[in-house]
Amino acid sequence: MSLTLSNRPHPKADFPIFDPAGPNAGIAYLDSGASAQKPKSVIEAVSAFYATGYANIHRGVYKLSANATDAYEGVRAQVARFINAASDQEIIFVRGATEGLNLIAATWGRAHLKAGDAVLISALEHHANIIPWQILRDQMGVELRIAGLAADGGIDRADFTAKLADGKVKLASFTHIANATGAVLPVADLIAEAKAAGAIVSVDGCQAVPHRPVDVQALGCDFYTFSGHKIYGPTGIGILYGRLPVLETMPPYQTGGDMVATVRFEATEFLDPPQRFEAGTPDIAGVIGLGAAIDYIQSLGWAWIEAHEKSLLAHGTAVLSKIPGLTLLPAGSERSGIFSFTVEGVHPHDLGTILDHHNVAIRAGSHCAQPLLNEFGLTATARASLGLYNETEDLDRLAEAVMAAQRMFAPKQRA
Amino acid sequence: MSLTLSNRPHPKADFPIFDPAGPNAGIAYLDSGASAQKPKSVIEAVSAFYATGYANIHRGVYKLSANATDAYEGVRAQVARFINAASDQEIIFVRGATEGLNLIAATWGRAHLKAGDAVLISALEHHANIIPWQILRDQMGVELRIAGLAADGGIDRADFTAKLADGKVKLASFTHIANATGAVLPVADLIAEAKAAGAIVSVDGCQAVPHRPVDVQALGCDFYTFSGHKIYGPTGIGILYGRLPVLETMPPYQTGGDMVATVRFEATEFLDPPQRFEAGTPDIAGVIGLGAAIDYIQSLGWAWIEAHEKSLLAHGTAVLSKIPGLTLLPAGSERSGIFSFTVEGVHPHDLGTILDHHNVAIRAGSHCAQPLLNEFGLTATARASLGLYNETEDLDRLAEAVMAAQRMFAPKQRA
Repeated sequence: MSLTLSNRPHPKADFPIFDPAGPNAGIAYLDSGASAQKPKSVIEAVSAFYATGYANIHRGVYKLSANATDAYEGVRAQVARFINAASDQEIIFVRGATEGLNLIAATWGRAHLKAGDAVLISALEHHANIIPWQILRDQMGVELRIAGLAADGGIDRADFTAKLADGKVKLASFTHIANATGAVLPVADLIAEAKAAGAIVSVDGCQAVPHRPVDVQALGCDFYTFSGHKIYGPTGIGILYGRLPVLETMPPYQTGGDMVATVRFEATEFLDPPQRFEAGTPDIAGVIGLGAAIDYIQSLGWAWIEAHEKSLLAHGTAVLSKIPGLTLLPAGSERSGIFSFTVEGVHPHDLGTILDHHNVAIRAGSHCAQPLLNEFGLTATARASLGLYNETEDLDRLAEAVMAAQRMFAPKQRA
Repeated sequence: MSLTLSNRPHPKADFPIFDPAGPNAGIAYLDSGASAQKPKSVIEAVSAFYATGYANIHRGVYKLSANATDAYEGVRAQVARFINAASDQEIIFVRGATEGLNLIAATWGRAHLKAGDAVLISALEHHANIIPWQILRDQMGVELRIAGLAADGGIDRADFTAKLADGKVKLASFTHIANATGAVLPVADLIAEAKAAGAIVSVDGCQAVPHRPVDVQALGCDFYTFSGHKIYGPTGIGILYGRLPVLETMPPYQTGGDMVATVRFEATEFLDPPQRFEAGTPDIAGVIGLGAAIDYIQSLGWAWIEAHEKSLLAHGTAVLSKIPGLTLLPAGSERSGIFSFTVEGVHPHDLGTILDHHNVAIRAGSHCAQPLLNEFGLTATARASLGLYNETEDLDRLAEAVMAAQRMFAPKQRA
């Protein structure tokens, strides 16, 4: 199968940060798992909104405000279509996935969990899908269960099943793709199993939504959350999808303007979802930019993006595997977008610094997933993560820079 | 005293939204109390950051990330200087004032209040400074006290004093300037009185920071919060100032990445303020834009801004006072930035719509302050609010459009 971009240039040209005449000329940017760069169309959508269409939303009787409201609510509908939600009401604008997960814990969790109930997460989670549940454990007496890591770097399916067996798990919350290793979890199966055991299911989609189409109705989860800045959109905006019948059982999270029907000092009546969960002036321009990011992804199309990233993954795996002393963390049965590795004799932070001198940008550290790295007996790795603008050359540059670092740290053995 | 802009053009020219060749040519924008327009320098700072300097912060070992971190933390220091905080650590980046107030209630409130304690607010508050305390009242048995409205539209000082007398008030939270009327509260005096009574004091500065210099140390409050989008900055970003000794007593609010020292499944150790309160990837570009907004305000200077707005206030008061049937809501001993009014025989929403046909943008409704309007026996007003780009002509246009609406609704009396 040959997939091409037909008559359009390679995406890298769409991203001003990679301008060959700009200050980052020649950078091999391999940190999209932390945050993706922004195409010109997103940057310009935000600028144009401020320059020609800006006003606060929902409460204005003048055209500028009405148009801004339409644009904002239009993106809500666009996001609903993007992830195939059943209704626009199921899309809540949040700051990012971290806020989405905190919102679930603070509202659904506090309203529905009680001492003795259990929450099930996996060993592959980002801190944002661990700590909110620890807080409920410590404050409410909820049990926090961890489905273990399998030897191949995936989730231990038998352990997951065993931890659902007694029916105490009222909420299961796990990642779609592990941010520290790129392991793709079999989320459709896990969701079905947890639902069958009577649990509400939340999925952290941060590392999935940039790389593959997501259909929340096909998945069957109750919550799905992701960050806009990781799908080529602005910072400060993210999405919490919640099934409407579940959202309707939840009290508000933050409170204030724009989420109330009536307010008296004695009592307040809240609006229905999604307004109930969007107190105060939201990141209106962030929402507009997120809409442009989704437009951009769809202009390339998932077929091209998936095929392109698959070829990058294969190339990266090949070039990194050839480097003696480099150990790639295993990622279960399927890897997506991320190479997490260690190099014998070179600390990940030193590696990151040396790679930077070669104009190769990666991340070094725990990737906000200390417990998962501990499972591997590590405290840090080097992580190279992919965006749709990467090219095989970026991965060649990565491999060359890793080998240069090895030479620097082991001069005598190689002399 | 003659204050001029010396050799620079009138600020309106700095704001692309007012471009005489653009889609909003000739608009009299009088809704800055809801949200302010953005100068070109703010729009360009955000664009330039995305186009040439974007990366996630705090965890990157490469230059692009280190530079983004420096820029982000540089704005924290800039904000600290802007409001004269004692330390950068006292500046927490939040989505806006609504989140700031919710954070105080959810962290300081839940950690330090107990049943039988009282929280004191005023009758002049925005919903965001009412509902978070109602939640604590309803969930924790805290008493919510309201310092009443004085006949002149200010705060009832005697009532405020009386409600502090029994020493049960552990937190007093009130607005600096009432968003629905423009009443300036004597916050320095109120803070001193509440502190003397043993309360922690929080001030909602949303309507003050755009219009006057604020010195949190001179005020002596424990918390001060405001929204970036109301001071000509981007949406999605705001500031919560907290005195460090107070912040240090507070548990985290949202939890996740970037606010932890160590995470194990068994237990997690949190960082010190301000990081403790900034979970997940923040609105990095919003912070950069907020820094540019503060630069812009300081490039004009408070002397010019205050003198200019004072002349606008005087002009607006004069032209509106001449309109028969128009009633301006009283604003105590000092008014700032806002004209809230009713017009006999014309509903505020109809008025707003007709004004829009005259290209005059105002807000109509309860202004997220239903209890205050109820005190006046109203459910809605028309509100015209000022920004530094307004000119006396905008207020003349407002007055003319109000009179045109009166003629439309009362043709027979005037025929």
